[in-house]
Amino acid sequence: VRSPESPVVVVASDSFKGSLSAREVADAIARGLKRALPGATIRARPMADGGEGTVEAALAGGGEHRTHLVTGASGRPRQATYGLVNRPEGPTAIIEVAEIVGITDGDGTSAPIEARSTRGVGELVRALLDAGLRRVMMGLGGSSTNDGGAGMLAALGARFLDEAGRPVEPTPAGLSRLATVEARDLDPRLRTCAITILSDVTNPLCGAIGASAVFGPQKGLRPEDIAEVDGVLARYAALTERALGAATPGAGAQAGAGAAGGLGFAARAIGGTFASGAQVIADLIGLDEALVDADWAITGEGKSDGQTLSGKAPFVVAARGRDLGVPVTLLSGALDDAALGALGDVFAGCFALPCRPMSLDACIAGADRLLADRAAALGALWRRLPAARPAR
Amino acid sequence: VRSPESPVVVVASDSFKGSLSAREVADAIARGLKRALPGATIRARPMADGGEGTVEAALAGGGEHRTHLVTGASGRPRQATYGLVNRPEGPTAIIEVAEIVGITDGDGTSAPIEARSTRGVGELVRALLDAGLRRVMMGLGGSSTNDGGAGMLAALGARFLDEAGRPVEPTPAGLSRLATVEARDLDPRLRTCAITILSDVTNPLCGAIGASAVFGPQKGLRPEDIAEVDGVLARYAALTERALGAATPGAGAQAGAGAAGGLGFAARAIGGTFASGAQVIADLIGLDEALVDADWAITGEGKSDGQTLSGKAPFVVAARGRDLGVPVTLLSGALDDAALGALGDVFAGCFALPCRPMSLDACIAGADRLLADRAAALGALWRRLPAARPAR
Repeated sequence: VRSPESPVVVVASDSFKGSLSAREVADAIARGLKRALPGATIRARPMADGGEGTVEAALAGGGEHRTHLVTGASGRPRQATYGLVNRPEGPTAIIEVAEIVGITDGDGTSAPIEARSTRGVGELVRALLDAGLRRVMMGLGGSSTNDGGAGMLAALGARFLDEAGRPVEPTPAGLSRLATVEARDLDPRLRTCAITILSDVTNPLCGAIGASAVFGPQKGLRPEDIAEVDGVLARYAALTERALGAATPGAGAQAGAGAAGGLGFAARAIGGTFASGAQVIADLIGLDEALVDADWAITGEGKSDGQTLSGKAPFVVAARGRDLGVPVTLLSGALDDAALGALGDVFAGCFALPCRPMSLDACIAGADRLLADRAAALGALWRRLPAARPAR
Repeated sequence: VRSPESPVVVVASDSFKGSLSAREVADAIARGLKRALPGATIRARPMADGGEGTVEAALAGGGEHRTHLVTGASGRPRQATYGLVNRPEGPTAIIEVAEIVGITDGDGTSAPIEARSTRGVGELVRALLDAGLRRVMMGLGGSSTNDGGAGMLAALGARFLDEAGRPVEPTPAGLSRLATVEARDLDPRLRTCAITILSDVTNPLCGAIGASAVFGPQKGLRPEDIAEVDGVLARYAALTERALGAATPGAGAQAGAGAAGGLGFAARAIGGTFASGAQVIADLIGLDEALVDADWAITGEGKSDGQTLSGKAPFVVAARGRDLGVPVTLLSGALDDAALGALGDVFAGCFALPCRPMSLDACIAGADRLLADRAAALGALWRRLPAARPAR
């Protein structure tokens, strides 16, 4: 048994979106813990779930940052960052869709959603194939597009044609005139490429809980246009599956096909397999190895709610901790009261940033300091509770 | 060593002013702890510091509620509640100045501050003497008055006269014409009465940090009138001390004389002795006995800041806990960031009510539920931390 003053603590939080990256969160928590527990050993393992921060998290344990010039969602060129890591199974690229067609990228959303495309994603995949890579992990979170992944397929050689046989743009607007999909020029190297799709979205491509209906509005799709765009994507998916000779027709209806505006459908259509983003990242960063002889772990995210338990990063950390006998405490920016009962069953205590009534803006602006202070309080509790117990 | 699932937890918080009484705080914390630790034994010991809630806290361990009709600060009659407890040293009355001339009492503040008086306090003391009581504990917090305690002295037989020998009102306005104080009719039973003054205020009666300057404005004293009223109280104090033949002239300058608008001065002038409100209440409620074999204690107050460490209720609980080897965690409505370093040295973790960005109003309105939820999180942390440690 280690001394209560010198625990090994794994800090494995997701980013606090809008305020701190996962690395900044880890730094703040470590600083606070050290204030209360100067003898603690902190193992920072910033987490991600396939959305923004995925490349950063994946590279924390080693690997290289690379950039490649691609076409952004609205058509402008942009330098997309991706990562290269050496895995036992071979060199692996980690790409983030949000780096190419990100919803928080002002330039990427300068065109209306009907004109945005995932072409840049296909351009990057093709460049990776050109470089000899055959393992790609594709984080799907945070996209601004709703093209069903047609842009990516087009960049990889698929052809989308109208009734007259003329090419249409791989965008919702272009696909509304789609009559034929040709796949014979699809890059053949894809067949030997292992594509892992990192996502925690389980929506199908179309319908009431499809990409257009659920994620369209937050990307700028007008409510009155949802039904039409949804129909366009349904037809696109049927034609594409037929052209690609999909092994399992109906992929559009499968869970996750609606991720990243339907990019999930297209990635699966070219042979990709879905995986929990947070689970894959946990493996990449060696979370189990960090936890196995740890005394305690702290995880978190910007806001924790019922969705947290659907495979978000903190849930994965809690699950790994449970398997390894390590208590995992949740320290998030905010907690949804309604989910506290369920969260309380999973975490060794659920805590949040504010130390007094404060606005969201104040919370975001002061996040670094607030987080360190909250971690210090948890450290103070850790230090004194066990110490007092053996005394009796 | 008890099982981590069944700790004995002492819950000894002050009230959260403006939202929950100390009893309500204890109930909410107990409810939350029980959610996470169904096997826990909760010992609720609501605390107070001499202000509002003092009688309630003092009676939690036994004793009787009584009421007596007195004159309120603005002259209207009101039923003041007080407590009677049997102590080893004899039957003891606990009175709260806030019950008689309370600042949160709308009726009591209907007259301007220059016309308010502590006469009702003296009426109650006289009634206690009539009932044969010779032990009085007087909680000074939360008064609306600034009469230097002249009202109380008048009700106990002192006479305040102008140049022409006519009685003046025992109020700031009346005392401005004060020329003579006569004490020969002061109730002689006071000489055999042990008066304990419960206060955590250390201000003197007059001057830059005196009652008028520091507490006057929050009671409605106009800034431009502070100097004049301060001068009135200084003259009143000098004349009163001379009339009473005070053993230690200059009592007005002593720490605490400025408590309750100078009632501290008057209470001391009739033989009262100052005591820390929270320390006395801790003794009255048997806090040490509750702590001695406990595993953990939780304390709190509406807002914790640097003042907390100047003898407020949570500080006293922490000090008792430290002496008895029990870790004491702070769970308050709000924490002042600037004081966190100092608070962190004293408490086994400092925590606050909000679980997300929220307004003060939302915090107050939801205090009961928020408090239970935060206590549940602390309980969850308690339960899992020690359990995981012996495993290695």
